[in-house]
Amino acid sequence: MNLDNIRIVLVNTSHPGNIGGVARAMKNMGLTRLCLVEPRQFPHEQAEWRAASAADVLENVVVTATLAEAIDDCQFVVGTSARERRIPWPLLDPRRCAARIDGISEREQVALLFGREDRGLTNDELKLCNLHLNIPTSEDYSSLNLAMAVQIVCYELRMLLVAPQLPAAQDEHWDTPFATRENMERFYAHLEQTLVEIGFLDPAAPRQLMSRLRRLYSRVRLDEMELNILRGILTETRKWVERGRRAGN
Amino acid sequence: MNLDNIRIVLVNTSHPGNIGGVARAMKNMGLTRLCLVEPRQFPHEQAEWRAASAADVLENVVVTATLAEAIDDCQFVVGTSARERRIPWPLLDPRRCAARIDGISEREQVALLFGREDRGLTNDELKLCNLHLNIPTSEDYSSLNLAMAVQIVCYELRMLLVAPQLPAAQDEHWDTPFATRENMERFYAHLEQTLVEIGFLDPAAPRQLMSRLRRLYSRVRLDEMELNILRGILTETRKWVERGRRAGN
Repeated sequence: MNLDNIRIVLVNTSHPGNIGGVARAMKNMGLTRLCLVEPRQFPHEQAEWRAASAADVLENVVVTATLAEAIDDCQFVVGTSARERRIPWPLLDPRRCAARIDGISEREQVALLFGREDRGLTNDELKLCNLHLNIPTSEDYSSLNLAMAVQIVCYELRMLLVAPQLPAAQDEHWDTPFATRENMERFYAHLEQTLVEIGFLDPAAPRQLMSRLRRLYSRVRLDEMELNILRGILTETRKWVERGRRAGN
Repeated sequence: MNLDNIRIVLVNTSHPGNIGGVARAMKNMGLTRLCLVEPRQFPHEQAEWRAASAADVLENVVVTATLAEAIDDCQFVVGTSARERRIPWPLLDPRRCAARIDGISEREQVALLFGREDRGLTNDELKLCNLHLNIPTSEDYSSLNLAMAVQIVCYELRMLLVAPQLPAAQDEHWDTPFATRENMERFYAHLEQTLVEIGFLDPAAPRQLMSRLRRLYSRVRLDEMELNILRGILTETRKWVERGRRAGN
C-alpha cells in the first residue's frame, strides 16, 4: 500500500464544511492528496474550520474544472455508488476494495471518486470507473455524510497498512508475562488451604467452590504480578488466622 | 449481533454539532440508542442540523448526570482510548472489538464509551471498562473527530452484521452468466480467422498476438452477452471483407 499514490476526488461538493471534514478524515488516516472537481464554494472558512489540523491538505488541494482533468493520469479509478445501477458494474465493499487497491497503489495512480451530497456520481461518471465501491448502510437511513464516507474508506486503507502491527488478541501487548500452569497450581493450593483455614471451605463438603474459582482465574489469564498480589493477600490472611488462634489460646 | 442491545455513550461532549453527527452516523449503520453523560449543550439546533434524518435518535436520547447511571445495567463496557496507558488494559482495534461484541450483544447490554473532544476518557473512566478500543490513526494527526470515531466503530458493527450478504468478489452479482470455456474457444477461433482476413494477423508470422488477446479476455472474464456482441462485430467485419473482395474482383 502506498497512500501517496491514492487521491481522493470530490465531485461538485456543495458544502465547504464537508471539504474540510474530508481533509481531516484523510490526514487522520495518512492520506494527503485531495482533488476538487468544480466545488461550489472553495476556499471557504468553514472548510478551514472543519479541517482543524489538516490545513496542509487544504493548501495542497488540486481544483479542476472537469473530472477528466482530475483522473486522466490514473491507472485505476474507483467510484462510490449508493444505489443499485441498471447495468451492474464490478462492485465491492470498502474492505475488499481496499484489498484490491493495496497492490495497485504500490505501482500506479489510484483515484477514489465521491459524488455530490444529494445525488452522488452520475451514471456517466460511474462509467469512467474500473470498480464501484458501496458502503453498507441501514435501509432505514442510507444517506451517509460525505466526509463520513471518505472516513470509512480511508480507515479501511489504513487498517490494511497497519494490519501487521495490530494486536491480534486483546492481551497481546501486555507488560508482564502471564503465569505458568505450575505457578497457577501453587496458587490454587495456597488459595484452597487459606479458604479452609478461614473456615470458608469445608473439606468435608467442598461443593464446587474450587472448580468455580479455577474457572474464574483461568478465564482471566493471570499475569505473574497479579498472581504475586493474590498470593500476598493469602499469606497476609493466614498470618491473621494464626494471630487469631494464638489470641484464642 | 443485536444492535438494539448496543448503546453509544458520549461523555461530556462540548460541541452539540458532534452529537448530531454521532446520531446520523449511528442511524446510517442501524444503531439507535444514544446516551449523553453531562453534555455541555443539549438540546441544541446544531445537533438537530447535523443529525439530518436521524432526528428520532436525538428524540430518544438518554441524558444522565453521571457515567455510572449510563452504564450500570450493562454487562460489557468498551472505552475508546487514543493514548497508550501506563497500566495496559485489554485492547483491540475496531474490527476485533466488533467481533468480540458480536456474540455478547445477542444476550447482554453493551456500552461503547466515547470521551471528550479534547482529551478523551479519564483514566478512572477507562478503568470501568472490560475492554479498550483503539482506532488506528496516522502519527502525523491522530486526533479523530468524535462523530468520525463513532462512525468507524458503528461501521465495523454493521460490516459484521451484513458480512454474509456482501459480495465476496467484484462480479458476484452479475446480471448475465459468464461465458463457458467452450464458447470462449469459439470466439478466439472466430477472432483469429477475422484478424487473418483483414490482414492484421499474418499466419506465417503470428508473433504473440493471439496469446495477448487471450490474456486480455481471460483476465476480464466475458459474460455471454459481451461475447455475443464481440462475435457480432467479427461477423459484420467479415461481411465487409467479403464485400471488399467482391468489389476488388
